[in-house]
Amino acid sequence: MSDAAAARIMRDLDDLAGCTSDAGAITRLFLTPSHATAVALVRTWMERAGLTTLLDASGTLVGRDSTASPDTPRLLLGSHIDTVRNAGRYDGCLGVALGIELAARAKQLTLPYTIEIRAFGDEEGVRFPVTLTGALAAAGLQITPARLEARDEDGITMAQALRDFGLDPEALADGDCTASGAFAYLEIHIEQGPVLDKAGAPLGVVTAINGAARFEVTVSGQAGHAGTVPMSQRHDALAATAEMVLAVRQIARARRDVVATVGRLNVAPNAANVIPGTCIFTVDVRAPRDAQRDETVTAIARAVEIAARDNAVGASMQRTHAAPAVACDKRLQGILAEALTTAALPAPHLPSGAGHDAMAMAALCPIGMLFIRCEGGISHHPDEQVTEADVAAALEVMTIALKRLDPETFKSGTSSP
Amino acid sequence: MSDAAAARIMRDLDDLAGCTSDAGAITRLFLTPSHATAVALVRTWMERAGLTTLLDASGTLVGRDSTASPDTPRLLLGSHIDTVRNAGRYDGCLGVALGIELAARAKQLTLPYTIEIRAFGDEEGVRFPVTLTGALAAAGLQITPARLEARDEDGITMAQALRDFGLDPEALADGDCTASGAFAYLEIHIEQGPVLDKAGAPLGVVTAINGAARFEVTVSGQAGHAGTVPMSQRHDALAATAEMVLAVRQIARARRDVVATVGRLNVAPNAANVIPGTCIFTVDVRAPRDAQRDETVTAIARAVEIAARDNAVGASMQRTHAAPAVACDKRLQGILAEALTTAALPAPHLPSGAGHDAMAMAALCPIGMLFIRCEGGISHHPDEQVTEADVAAALEVMTIALKRLDPETFKSGTSSP
Repeated sequence: MSDAAAARIMRDLDDLAGCTSDAGAITRLFLTPSHATAVALVRTWMERAGLTTLLDASGTLVGRDSTASPDTPRLLLGSHIDTVRNAGRYDGCLGVALGIELAARAKQLTLPYTIEIRAFGDEEGVRFPVTLTGALAAAGLQITPARLEARDEDGITMAQALRDFGLDPEALADGDCTASGAFAYLEIHIEQGPVLDKAGAPLGVVTAINGAARFEVTVSGQAGHAGTVPMSQRHDALAATAEMVLAVRQIARARRDVVATVGRLNVAPNAANVIPGTCIFTVDVRAPRDAQRDETVTAIARAVEIAARDNAVGASMQRTHAAPAVACDKRLQGILAEALTTAALPAPHLPSGAGHDAMAMAALCPIGMLFIRCEGGISHHPDEQVTEADVAAALEVMTIALKRLDPETFKSGTSSP
Repeated sequence: MSDAAAARIMRDLDDLAGCTSDAGAITRLFLTPSHATAVALVRTWMERAGLTTLLDASGTLVGRDSTASPDTPRLLLGSHIDTVRNAGRYDGCLGVALGIELAARAKQLTLPYTIEIRAFGDEEGVRFPVTLTGALAAAGLQITPARLEARDEDGITMAQALRDFGLDPEALADGDCTASGAFAYLEIHIEQGPVLDKAGAPLGVVTAINGAARFEVTVSGQAGHAGTVPMSQRHDALAATAEMVLAVRQIARARRDVVATVGRLNVAPNAANVIPGTCIFTVDVRAPRDAQRDETVTAIARAVEIAARDNAVGASMQRTHAAPAVACDKRLQGILAEALTTAALPAPHLPSGAGHDAMAMAALCPIGMLFIRCEGGISHHPDEQVTEADVAAALEVMTIALKRLDPETFKSGTSSP
């Protein structure tokens, strides 16, 4: 399955990959010159699709059908055009390019709503120690002074960077970017994980953006000479930690859709001939429902305590991060699933382990997400890859879904998770 | 149990602690100015004991009874006066101080042999990437050109450092330091482990200096997004490593007198939100018999292989160090044990997990070692502590042992392990 539009989208994304700060790699951080060139390029795509464009105060490029009357219900489609350092070319950008093509197609259909595109500029959170600025602003959430004073590695505040980009931080803080009147937000995004690829499914319906909790665990044993302290008299922080690492895995394995990871572990004194005295490690837990996440964390905390007691070491666990799960709207999930079935495609449902602009947009209106498989689940890497056929499938499925979408059923304006 | 000599030894060791390169801490590396001041101080102790002194070409201070006829059998007593960085005051030094006191006492007894003291200068191996230079030279083992060309952190070769110390590297290489004619070597040393302290025994008979084998294991999994890769599709290098760490401990626990330690572990990329892709860790194995050590290493290698297979990761294991076990002479063990019993003390036998000058001396003659308990097993640390009562006990036990020691029974000159 392929079509001319999918082929053009693949070429467009190759062009967009050229908007970078690093020759030979893709690096496009928020409010940098490479972001400006990307805005200029995506603007040409929007104009080619017959959309009117504006760059809002948050650095989000907005594309809309200026022929639609102001009181026409609006469906938002979007994703982001910033990247991590040394990125792939599809993360975020593919959703923007697909959205623009769908907005162009929508003009040929008689839909009871208009489509508005948002190409957000700050989803990866690489330049500043905050993220989702564009989506939060679009959702009408307050942009705090603290966010505007956040500094990049060179000490430049976000407010200054916005001004340098030709934008007005005060207008941003005043809520000028709010996408009021939207009845739903749909985001198409690469999966960034291996589930669809393993299942042989080009597309998948996202059920929720997983909530996360992150902890730092400190295990305090007693350092000692690796040669002179008998096994029975040790308080080995690493052996205790090993039991905890395996418990974390076992607990996650026993729970559907939950993942838990010990990603960072530092051992002290970390010398071949010294029994480890202290270990510090992180635990990252993600789950589609907050109650499930919290129950998992409780189980891990108990396992840490038991392993500490069994190994005669101390252990303390400190929460360093928490984000609630965001459910995708059941009606939107249903429309996407039906469209997949109509297109004779499998309709797997899966949670998103990674965060997306849709998380913030959920504060404004019901959200839905369609995942496109990426080869081997590889993302945030130059090897990130999607096929033209899968892009064509996404266009077909979304076109079916757009035809079935009725703004009347979203009149309450609230989500139905 | 205490006596005036023990009290003086404690004061002498407090004085020796003042020979340091670091104000407020004890750091005395081979052939440094602090080593020179320590040689000068220990020389006064030897002279006070009526011994004639000489500094040999390896930087070892030798003390002997110049009234003994040249063909009198010689018993060597010694240990080292160099230290690690930020050391305690008893490691090595206590054995030298006790040896000098015993040599003084021996002059009052009618023994069929003479005692010669050696205060070695290079046991800790901190300054140069080689160690035991003094003991190897005393044992008559070849001092290789490579050893003399070993460089310290400042790029100074050992040969240059010897010359700067007023010594002749060529004489050292020519075997001038060989302690020919010695029928046995006895070393008194702090345990550097917790066994005697836990057992409530002031002294213990060393059965062997454990052999060691050290390995570096590389576990190769696959890094991935901590949020997007389901538990069932992971190749988590750290989870596999955790199984290996616990297997190492289990294998050592199941074997008498064997210890095995994973002391160093580095995780990559070591980020909270990334599944570990690679782990590199060390395994340090020590055992009183080489066959036992080798069997332990084989069991660990098999466990590493099984854990790698079970976790769908790669693992490779590379030997980085090996030292054979050195058995203490059975006759010397017997004499020390009888002396303990005569002194109404428990006579625990234990292997030494740490290395000692005696390891090298075993190439020259039968060796024996008496351990003195140190509080909590703490060593290589400013908190290293022994009691005056235990020092007095060591003097009493060694005096009994020296009286029973008959050079005739060692005439073959070979060890009886």
